[in-house]
Amino acid sequence: MANQIYLFSLIFFSVLLYQSTTVLSFRKPFDLAKPCKRFVFHLHNVAYDGDNMDNATSAAIVNPLGLGDFNFGKFVIMDNPVTMDQNYLSKPVARVQGFFFYHGKAKYDTWLSWSVVFNSTQHKGTLNIMGENPFMEPTRDLPVVGGTGDFVMTRGIATFMTDLVEGNKYFRVKMDIKLYECYY
Amino acid sequence: MANQIYLFSLIFFSVLLYQSTTVLSFRKPFDLAKPCKRFVFHLHNVAYDGDNMDNATSAAIVNPLGLGDFNFGKFVIMDNPVTMDQNYLSKPVARVQGFFFYHGKAKYDTWLSWSVVFNSTQHKGTLNIMGENPFMEPTRDLPVVGGTGDFVMTRGIATFMTDLVEGNKYFRVKMDIKLYECYY
Amino acid sequence: MANQIYLFSLIFFSVLLYQSTTVLSFRKPFDLAKPCKRFVFHLHNVAYDGDNMDNATSAAIVNPLGLGDFNFGKFVIMDNPVTMDQNYLSKPVARVQGFFFYHGKAKYDTWLSWSVVFNSTQHKGTLNIMGENPFMEPTRDLPVVGGTGDFVMTRGIATFMTDLVEGNKYFRVKMDIKLYECYY
Repeated sequence: MANQIYLFSLIFFSVLLYQSTTVLSFRKPFDLAKPCKRFVFHLHNVAYDGDNMDNATSAAIVNPLGLGDFNFGKFVIMDNPVTMDQNYLSKPVARVQGFFFYHGKAKYDTWLSWSVVFNSTQHKGTLNIMGENPFMEPTRDLPVVGGTGDFVMTRGIATFMTDLVEGNKYFRVKMDIKLYECYY
Repeated sequence: MANQIYLFSLIFFSVLLYQSTTVLSFRKPFDLAKPCKRFVFHLHNVAYDGDNMDNATSAAIVNPLGLGDFNFGKFVIMDNPVTMDQNYLSKPVARVQGFFFYHGKAKYDTWLSWSVVFNSTQHKGTLNIMGENPFMEPTRDLPVVGGTGDFVMTRGIATFMTDLVEGNKYFRVKMDIKLYECYY
Repeated sequence: MANQIYLFSLIFFSVLLYQSTTVLSFRKPFDLAKPCKRFVFHLHNVAYDGDNMDNATSAAIVNPLGLGDFNFGKFVIMDNPVTMDQNYLSKPVARVQGFFFYHGKAKYDTWLSWSVVFNSTQHKGTLNIMGENPFMEPTRDLPVVGGTGDFVMTRGIATFMTDLVEGNKYFRVKMDIKLYECYY
């Protein structure tokens, strides 16, 4: 029995030691195809043109500088609906609130920081996505850096694909949000 | 003895296997009421009106667009004192530096990204809070996405409550910051 | 044998219990000098002056307000090259895309949010750094709050040192990026 208590202690403290020394080192690579939560959404952005107050969901607060031909310096604030399918008229399941701006001198390129805000019977809470968004690429990954409510302390990756661009008036983005840390 | 070494190995590697496979899956729900660190502060924002240079702690760098009646497009940069009580004249214990902007077309609504900067004998370091801030709600949660110094690698939730709003001149916000990952 | 199965179970579930209760409490302090990945880079910022379209890598989109003498309110968008040495003409190993703004009324002070974008044979992916950047200090720490690609789910600390400032035209910053969570 004494033997077994000794063994128990030995193992228990070995594990503790192992844990404490590995918390901040390399972690085991994980399967990016197996998120703990996943959402696929379509975001709709209707740009304000001075004449579409009722429909507009975003507006430039600073116009391009004239540094190149790709909108460098244009800064847009948005409060966009998000739907399950591509139809702009479908019932929104969330909103995306935040901003983006253009920073490409020789090509179109944006940087963004967005909150996905859920307020439905299914989900309550927010997710924050931020970073470089080279929207001329077919797909691009951005980090999910935090959340609240159902998504408290979450992290992950959002993959964006541009569904449709209609000049400066409208665009639709497919957001494939994969969370790899979930508590609820 | 050989038996026990075998048992030891079995258990040790079972635990390792368990760990490595769960690192990025669902984690145990935790008690939001038991943060590892907690701060309750009051933030004071005195808006620049062109005539109060000495007292101003924030200023709009872009004015509202006229898209609705709720300041859509107004963008504010701030460097605000934070005190332990509600008194604006109390000794600041930290500063909050960052920005916020209004994005509501049909109601007041803001989005923000703030650093709480501590520089006292008690605490040195920063915390970063960001995301959607629907300030007409009595309380709202925002994620704490990172930190430095005493708060290196931290994460958590900041709950904001508006203490007082005096038109466009002054507001005071109660910040209840709860950290759930602490290393120091 | 029954005894050993009992012991196995006891230990295994003790460890699980230990784990589940500690996931979100204080974690073991770690050695800040031992990151799992580290990069030392130099970032070059050439400000647009209306006349240097070819060389410019950043541009102010909002000019200072006149609140104090330290550029309060100046907001800059950037797409800057990053090199291994201090030479502006060296081959870039990454780009830094994002923004910064001045918020000091009585001294120079900035706040920033930057993505470090790698696209080489060695590294593909992004890192996000954000927060208060008191650039008159010899060194300052900012949190790394997320990443993608080779840096998926990463976190850490970026230490910035100003290498050189040439008036409003050019600055160079040494970035010492230390990651403490690595999966790949």
